This record gives sequence, structure tokens and C-alpha cells, in this order.
Amino acid sequence: MSQQQRDTVAQILRNAPVDLGGEVTEQRELFAKMVAANPVPDGVRIESLSLDGIPALSIEPQATTPDSTVLYFHGGCFVVGSARASAGLAANLARKTGARVISVDYRLAPEHPYPAALDDALTAYRALLGGEHGTAPIAVAGESAGANLATALILAARGLGDLPQPACAVLFSPWADLTVPHLPQDAGLDPVINAGALRTRAVDYLAGADPRDGLLSPVHADLTGLPPMLIQAGSEEYLLDDAVRLAARAAADHVPVTLDVTPRVLHVFQAFAALLEEGEDALTRAAAFLHTHTH
Amino acid sequence: MSQQQRDTVAQILRNAPVDLGGEVTEQRELFAKMVAANPVPDGVRIESLSLDGIPALSIEPQATTPDSTVLYFHGGCFVVGSARASAGLAANLARKTGARVISVDYRLAPEHPYPAALDDALTAYRALLGGEHGTAPIAVAGESAGANLATALILAARGLGDLPQPACAVLFSPWADLTVPHLPQDAGLDPVINAGALRTRAVDYLAGADPRDGLLSPVHADLTGLPPMLIQAGSEEYLLDDAVRLAARAAADHVPVTLDVTPRVLHVFQAFAALLEEGEDALTRAAAFLHTHTH
Repeated sequence: MSQQQRDTVAQILRNAPVDLGGEVTEQRELFAKMVAANPVPDGVRIESLSLDGIPALSIEPQATTPDSTVLYFHGGCFVVGSARASAGLAANLARKTGARVISVDYRLAPEHPYPAALDDALTAYRALLGGEHGTAPIAVAGESAGANLATALILAARGLGDLPQPACAVLFSPWADLTVPHLPQDAGLDPVINAGALRTRAVDYLAGADPRDGLLSPVHADLTGLPPMLIQAGSEEYLLDDAVRLAARAAADHVPVTLDVTPRVLHVFQAFAALLEEGEDALTRAAAFLHTHTH
Repeated sequence: MSQQQRDTVAQILRNAPVDLGGEVTEQRELFAKMVAANPVPDGVRIESLSLDGIPALSIEPQATTPDSTVLYFHGGCFVVGSARASAGLAANLARKTGARVISVDYRLAPEHPYPAALDDALTAYRALLGGEHGTAPIAVAGESAGANLATALILAARGLGDLPQPACAVLFSPWADLTVPHLPQDAGLDPVINAGALRTRAVDYLAGADPRDGLLSPVHADLTGLPPMLIQAGSEEYLLDDAVRLAARAAADHVPVTLDVTPRVLHVFQAFAALLEEGEDALTRAAAFLHTHTH
């Protein structure tokens, strides 16, 4: 479709001095700079808020009154990133769906390992369900580690028994297996995400917990009873196999699941929707999925 | 969604005296009777035609002028079934898409083993491309063994070099691996399709050919260069793993692919769209996919 657009995005990523396996404080700054290259689209209103004490960004379309809420979790290997850094993608989702997107600033490892992020996600979800800031119906979404966290949230909610499931889940390039197996894509096509970086960051987040626990690696969970799930991935990303295996797990556990793979694009390519036709198209499909399941 | 509807369909299948692994002549009659339980919807015009000598059924909506063509391949393990027997599903596709669906009566094994069916598919495709009976753009679709054949057709067309690829492929419950490995779903949830029947019918079709050949088992093919592919399956069907593995193969080979799994339904559940909400919904998604890629 758009070889030149894809080359531009790959170039941006290759030129970014980010090394996700590197020293945390430095990488947080570099990651924020890299992600800031994705502009926040016009036509959305962004404001900070607190969900029962958990900081978050509310991102909503200016032109319409939101009639649903997407609880969103940013990426960054559980260690870097923020709602602000990923506001471009979340804002495009708000623009495309007309939903209010609430992006959670969950606590990061290594200072706050598992289950801190999940605890924050649950607190935020419970506050939303209680009518704080959100408009029902509620969907969840996330990118990379945030897609892992969104899935862990609905698994944890199912386990608690007193929380309803969201209407659906949209997972962009989920990091779904914190055991980080050696995968066929290990050849290094992806300039940002690779096995070494993921293994380093998994250690930070796990802090000794078992990565085969379903709340840490949804590919190892029993997903029975989860709501409809859309999983998007790029064919040239290291985590393609995580997406495929998560879809296979969901299908075997009788979850309504759609796996949607875009060729020749990289990890969380939807973040580059402004530059990349495939990113815009994938977001259009994600918005249609959200619309179907929240209306 | 529709437990009662699902139970009704499972009951119909369980009560059908079909044994797909049984004696061919008898099973052809029983299969035709079972599939005839799926009514052909109103509002379509059905007529017989010939595509350069290959018999086919043309199924088109009466209310609109078709602006695209779907070349369709029925199921039946390469040994039973016919365009007429599967006309209900093909007609629903015509109704939903507004396309003309041309369902090919390819030759059946064991009288005509591989590559007879594929030769017929290629002849029909070439005739359509030559302007015979069809309206461009052309998509391909198929159910079960017919989805295998649709995939083999586009692989063969790619290999020949002088035939363009279709706009997209819609594959309902593809039988994608004629090696018929022992699969997790082997427990017998599916009342019609099971490993024993598939192994018997694979022998008929293969007639000594290697089931690891990509033109016989697309999960073992290099799918590079194939057009956008939608793969639908039910979570309770024996062939779920074929669908998942075909999607994984397509994704790894950089094919735009969507895997769409509906929970708690059986093999080619879309054939029961008149009885089963999930079937109707899946056909709606298939029609939207076809529309996107042919307009």
C-alpha cells in the first residue's frame, strides 16, 4: 500500500536512540521524546483527572458528546511510558469512536512491580463503574504492555466476582507472554522491541513472580468468559506470535475473538496513524469493533 | 447469545445420519439431504451455467445489479457435496453482499482425485477473468474443503504468473491441513467432522500425493503475496486449529489476514444463518469484508 510511509516510520524508530532494555531513567526520557513524534490530533479535549486516586488523562472528542467510555492502558514494557506519551493514539481512538478515552497512569516498575499496575487498573475500573467520570458502556483497550494489563484487568475482574465485564477489549500489539520465549520473529526486524529488552523489563515487572501466572501472561490464562476481543498486530513485529497465541488461547476458551494482522508494519503501528495509511485503517476497524460492542 | 438456537443446530447435525467417513455413494445422498435442511433465502435468482465447460451455479440478488463476483467452492471433504447442496450459504452471501456468487461444481474424489478439483477451479477462474459470466472485481470464497480449494486456487494462480490475484478471499471453516494431525479438539465436540472421517477422505483426494504440498494443505504453503484473507471458524469445531494455524501462516507470510472466531458454534455454522443468530452475524462481517475489498 504505502511503502514510502512504512519506510518513514521504520526510519523514525530506527533513528530513535531508545533502547528499551537500557537504564530506566534515561529510557523514560528517550521514550517520551520518541512517542511525542506522534501528534495529538485536533478536535479532542484532554484533561487530567483522578479515578479514586489513580491519575489519568481524559481524552474526548470536542464535536460530540461521548456515549461510551474506553479505559485505556499505555505501553512501555511496564517500566516506561505514560498516558501523556501515548495520548496521540488514545486521541485518535476517541476521534474515531466518539468515545471518551480515559488513559490510566498506572504505577511503573521497577519501583512498583506487579501487582501495582494491576491494582491501579482495578481501582480505576471500579471507580468508572461507580459512575466516576465515565459513561456506560465501558470498553477496555491498550497497547503492548498496556494490552497485557487490559487483559489482566478483565481476568482479575472476573476472578473477583463482584465486577461486571467490560463490553469488549481492543488490544494493540499485546505483550502477552512475559516468559519471552524464543520466537521465529527473533531475527530483529523490529527496531524497538526485541527479546533482550523484553526479558530485562519482564524481570523488573515480575520482581520474582511467576511469568506463567495468567495475570502476568494472558497466553497462559484460562480466558473463559471474557468479552469480545479484537487483537491487532503487524506482521513485522517481534510480538506477532504473542498476538497469534493470545487469539488461539481466546478461541480455544470460547471467547469471541478477532485477530487482525496488517502486513509489513511494526509494533503499535496505529500510533503512526497520522503518517501511515495502515495505521489509520486499523484504527477505523478498531473503532467499528468498539461501536458494534458498545451500541 | 442464543443457546436455544445453538442447541437446535447441534441437534440437527447429531440426528443427521451422515458419516463423512462412510461409503461414498451413500454419504453423498445423506449429505445432500442434511444440507438441504438449510433453506435458500428468498430474493435470489439461481441458474446453471458453464465456465469453459466447468458446471456451476450462478446465484445473484434479484433486487440489485451485482457489481462484483464471488467465485465460491462448496464443502464436503472433496468427496461429497455440490453447488446445489451448499446453495443456501452461497445465496445468503449474495443477499448480504449484492455480489453475484458463482459456485463451482468441481469434480469430486475418489473418482477424480487431486488435482482434478484444482484444475476445475483454475479453469473456472480463468473463464471468469476472461469476462465469461462475471463482473469484476472478483473475490473467492469457500467452506471447509472448498476453502482449502479457494486457497489452493489463488496459490496456483500466483504460481502460474499470468493470472491476477482475486480482490480477497473469504474462508469459512477451512480444512487447511490434509495431514490431519491429532488436534486438541479431537475430543469429539463436532458431530459431523472428526479426525477419522477427514483421514479417510484425505486418502481419497490425495490418491498418493503428499499432503504437505502447499496446494493440498495451505498451512504448509508459503502464502506470500496472497490477497486479504478473512478466516471464520467456530470455537467448538474440530477444524478450529486449522483456521488458527492458517491465520498464523498467513500473518507470518505478510498476508493481510483476519481470523474471526465465534464461540460455541460448529463447523460452517454460517450455513445455519436462518436458524442461528451467530451465523447471520458472521455473514454480515464476511459481507463487510468483501465490500471493503471489492469497492
